[in-house]
Amino acid sequence: MSLVVVGSVAFDSIQTPDGALENALGGSAVHFSMAASYFGGVQLVGVVGEDFPDSHRQLMSSRGICLDGLEVVTGGETFRWSGKYFDDMDHRETLSVDLNVFENFKPDLPASYRDTGFLFLGNGAPLTQASVLDQVSSAPFTVVDTMDLWIDIARSDLEALLTRVDALVLNDEESQQLSGEKNVIIAGRKIREMGPRCVIIKRGQHGAFISHEDGEVALPALPLANVVDPTGAGDSFAGGLMGCLMKSERTDLAALKVAVAWGTVTASFCCQGFGVTGFDNVSAGDLRDRFETYRNMLELDPVEIPQII
Amino acid sequence: MSLVVVGSVAFDSIQTPDGALENALGGSAVHFSMAASYFGGVQLVGVVGEDFPDSHRQLMSSRGICLDGLEVVTGGETFRWSGKYFDDMDHRETLSVDLNVFENFKPDLPASYRDTGFLFLGNGAPLTQASVLDQVSSAPFTVVDTMDLWIDIARSDLEALLTRVDALVLNDEESQQLSGEKNVIIAGRKIREMGPRCVIIKRGQHGAFISHEDGEVALPALPLANVVDPTGAGDSFAGGLMGCLMKSERTDLAALKVAVAWGTVTASFCCQGFGVTGFDNVSAGDLRDRFETYRNMLELDPVEIPQII
Repeated sequence: MSLVVVGSVAFDSIQTPDGALENALGGSAVHFSMAASYFGGVQLVGVVGEDFPDSHRQLMSSRGICLDGLEVVTGGETFRWSGKYFDDMDHRETLSVDLNVFENFKPDLPASYRDTGFLFLGNGAPLTQASVLDQVSSAPFTVVDTMDLWIDIARSDLEALLTRVDALVLNDEESQQLSGEKNVIIAGRKIREMGPRCVIIKRGQHGAFISHEDGEVALPALPLANVVDPTGAGDSFAGGLMGCLMKSERTDLAALKVAVAWGTVTASFCCQGFGVTGFDNVSAGDLRDRFETYRNMLELDPVEIPQII
Repeated sequence: MSLVVVGSVAFDSIQTPDGALENALGGSAVHFSMAASYFGGVQLVGVVGEDFPDSHRQLMSSRGICLDGLEVVTGGETFRWSGKYFDDMDHRETLSVDLNVFENFKPDLPASYRDTGFLFLGNGAPLTQASVLDQVSSAPFTVVDTMDLWIDIARSDLEALLTRVDALVLNDEESQQLSGEKNVIIAGRKIREMGPRCVIIKRGQHGAFISHEDGEVALPALPLANVVDPTGAGDSFAGGLMGCLMKSERTDLAALKVAVAWGTVTASFCCQGFGVTGFDNVSAGDLRDRFETYRNMLELDPVEIPQII
């Protein structure tokens, strides 16, 4: 099974209460791919300028990420974003955005990508996201991300897109904005009525909520004593999630729960370093160990229950 | 094993976006006892005025709650509280507080209560809470609740109390206020350094976090589509939690996880009705069923993992 991601490739400049990083490799497609690469090959579609260094390509290639779909715009500059985190590390402020070559990004899938089984559409204009669906020859399990901006200015495009995808990933506030509902169960159901049979609501340090036709599930995040930089945590979560789905070749609710757990694990590594450095020297065995920690955390001693009540 | 709760008994008037209730039975000791009563006998210590109706006593007695420790002040009036919930049901505003007989509450434990194995000190002045510890002849597993007010105005009394108890239950904001730390892991560790070997941080719809010398655990809440009235949810959580501990006669981390799960279940029933009516017609079997739902929600399909990564 193959996995294609379409999204941004960027230079991020990040300030946190404890440090700062300038012009680091970032972007939704990058964070997604780094996390998903532990599970198998990932095919990336994105755009960069001539300023994108070979070292970044080499890092991604060494992880098994296929860059055949990474377009380079002659004379162009790569997308730049800078932001600053507040004390709680849960909230941030965008300091500057230079879309550069990303502004006119028209994703063009290489022929070898078009028969994919799994597709992730990173945050972007819904019309651009829809243009990718027009190019695939297979009927991939498609997960789409979005943000408040598109819910605000392109709601009808987004609603049209939602009728064509399997799952939507978004955060708590975005789910409330899109559905008009504060209650997470009702919000998830209303969004599912728009099309996707699954909605995954990201709740940051509070974990994730799955709204699915077969049931609703809340899972916690892995508590972390040291959050260095949460940038890309949502995309790393999606990468681990879809890497797991690709590997298990299942998309039922039980498989989605396991996938959310793996996404929780990859997101936790992402948070432990600036940019993509949270994955430096992290092996598949490290991910497995943390998955076991997570599963043990959720396990309730079975002996106790019948004696209790 | 026996379980004693010391706390408030009140008349609550509650407004929510969908309804209102006047002068309903409430208070920390009442909500705690209603939840804990499913697990075994509960011995209540509190104070009311002459206006406290027999029907409330009968309701509690019928649940196996011992009222030998419920003092009646001749000519006095029962504590009254009124509050209003905002749209998200996560936040509320106190509209009025009439402490009445609760203002000079001096808990006096009946002789038959003093040898208890488990003790819950509901939210109150730390000196009043400490006076209960002076009366017990056993060394019960003691859990204490507190609030922002006491952290503000009676911090040294609270810190003295914390050296004498086994566990502290408080909410996220209170844990940050008490510890001066935003990160939940660090906050829990700092509070444990003040004395208790366990800190349980309540996160409302996001569940609960256990900070314990043997590890840290985050567990989600049960998602609820219909939250009628969250008043007393925290005390119902503590009631289910301590009811389970009393029944299992264990207080290690594995037992605390199971206890938090039962607390999550009892709190969920509390939220589904105004005041204590969330427990109307709720049987032990109903609690068991919901516990199984919760445990199933947390269970990650074991077959999948080795194939994934």
